[in-house]
Amino acid sequence: MPATNQPLSFVKGHGTGNDFVVILDREGQIELPEERVAAISDRRFGVGADGILRVVPAKYIAEAASEPADDLWFMDYRNADGSIAEMCGNGARVFAKFLLDNELVDTETTDGAGSFQFESRAGVHDAQIGTDGIAINMGPPSPGPAGSSTEGQASDITVTVGERSWPAQAWWMPNPHAVVMVDSLDDAGTLMDAPKVDAGPLFPDGQNVEFMVDTSTDAEQLSSSIRIFERGVGETLSCGTGACAAALALRELHGVAGPGDVAVSVPGGEVCVKVDDEGDVWLIGPAEFVAEGTLYL
Amino acid sequence: MPATNQPLSFVKGHGTGNDFVVILDREGQIELPEERVAAISDRRFGVGADGILRVVPAKYIAEAASEPADDLWFMDYRNADGSIAEMCGNGARVFAKFLLDNELVDTETTDGAGSFQFESRAGVHDAQIGTDGIAINMGPPSPGPAGSSTEGQASDITVTVGERSWPAQAWWMPNPHAVVMVDSLDDAGTLMDAPKVDAGPLFPDGQNVEFMVDTSTDAEQLSSSIRIFERGVGETLSCGTGACAAALALRELHGVAGPGDVAVSVPGGEVCVKVDDEGDVWLIGPAEFVAEGTLYL
Repeated sequence: MPATNQPLSFVKGHGTGNDFVVILDREGQIELPEERVAAISDRRFGVGADGILRVVPAKYIAEAASEPADDLWFMDYRNADGSIAEMCGNGARVFAKFLLDNELVDTETTDGAGSFQFESRAGVHDAQIGTDGIAINMGPPSPGPAGSSTEGQASDITVTVGERSWPAQAWWMPNPHAVVMVDSLDDAGTLMDAPKVDAGPLFPDGQNVEFMVDTSTDAEQLSSSIRIFERGVGETLSCGTGACAAALALRELHGVAGPGDVAVSVPGGEVCVKVDDEGDVWLIGPAEFVAEGTLYL
Repeated sequence: MPATNQPLSFVKGHGTGNDFVVILDREGQIELPEERVAAISDRRFGVGADGILRVVPAKYIAEAASEPADDLWFMDYRNADGSIAEMCGNGARVFAKFLLDNELVDTETTDGAGSFQFESRAGVHDAQIGTDGIAINMGPPSPGPAGSSTEGQASDITVTVGERSWPAQAWWMPNPHAVVMVDSLDDAGTLMDAPKVDAGPLFPDGQNVEFMVDTSTDAEQLSSSIRIFERGVGETLSCGTGACAAALALRELHGVAGPGDVAVSVPGGEVCVKVDDEGDVWLIGPAEFVAEGTLYL
């Protein structure tokens, strides 16, 4: 077992402004205790990131669901504070791009496009590479909080900021979101404090809030702009599951039930949310690497 | 002239939580336009830093004051927004450590200690390396704002936060500071907004504010803890000239006029401010590198 402060190779990148330090661990031997993750993620005493993506063969992860023979890579995602997170949509694109750039996956590509699988704590994901970015299958939306019989769409939810209140939709991807339609993104104010959400028993552990403006020209070309307030974090430049939740809410408003795309503009860039024939939600967007090197933390 | 997006080698480091990207430019050929500095310094779309330190021979800098034959290195400091800054005390330690670690200066050392010179836009600086950290000669305090006949110490200055007001001292290092003695650093509150400073004509371009608690045991062992509100930035983890200003104010309060040391605890660590026989102010503290690699911005 190496010492925890052995120099580590890293890459820094982002997906629509959600930024990550990516660490390749081919042998499943890199120790990343909470304090080391927090030290690396610290924006002044470390490199700085929203989280860390350890790229490790799933066969070294006890909790992995895939078979060792499947030979999948596992996305070991950690929040900036060192805590473990199941999944991160923007991080998944950065993870997938890392696999591609380092030729760690065989995409059976003929024209620059291709598809492959990887695993996270949320399960096995399909990834597709195309000219419009990297697409990650986020799975279908959940009907409500784990262990609950609540139907998410049938409730009265109110979101309040200062003196203003709006009705909201609840969506689980599978983390919980309250999506609010507003006339202008400025209506949400400075968002220095968390919006107040009155949702009865729907969100026992809190939720993210997305404020959305409908910019669609017609029901065939759905598009929106959103701002995101993440629970425990504050306003953020991007949130992958938040973009998915917003797109699902917009489809609901326009009465769209079948497969289709929604363009979602987040403060950190542009993503596309696609619902496929099976009802799975795909998040499609860019991923970019800005630096690579060696960490001494 | 290389393209501005040619990959660049870099080191990331910090001095008491003020963090910097250091770029070595041996031939004076690296272009760092404002937008590139801002892109690198961006904490989510870039590497992230409070500023960039370009390490370049002074002979390539038209504004350098030293003679080419002196063969000094020039600290080309840029703020995170790309603007040019004269000097940065915490950055100067990181700069000096970079020169040492890369054997770019001859310190004529016999025991790990040593001294050398480098230049910044504020002039030529002496640096000393010792077991207690890296010491940078910040020069003597200025008597007041440039072009003014005002004597800084003779004015009535009031600093107000919310309902509370305190008298303050003015110091120029050479940038302007208002130093406030408080009973507890909590007295300054959350510092989400800039303290109000009523100082007549003393600070035509604004000033930083340091809130200081005197932790000295006696006049021979002066020590303090401070919080810093930097103009145009907000509360920060550290400010080199602010620590110097606070130390000078504490000496004034204790009636210390000759050479001596003041220990200053800042939110990001510990520094020592020394006044030497000539009245020059030395800032002594740590510098640390956390990563190195290649930038693609």
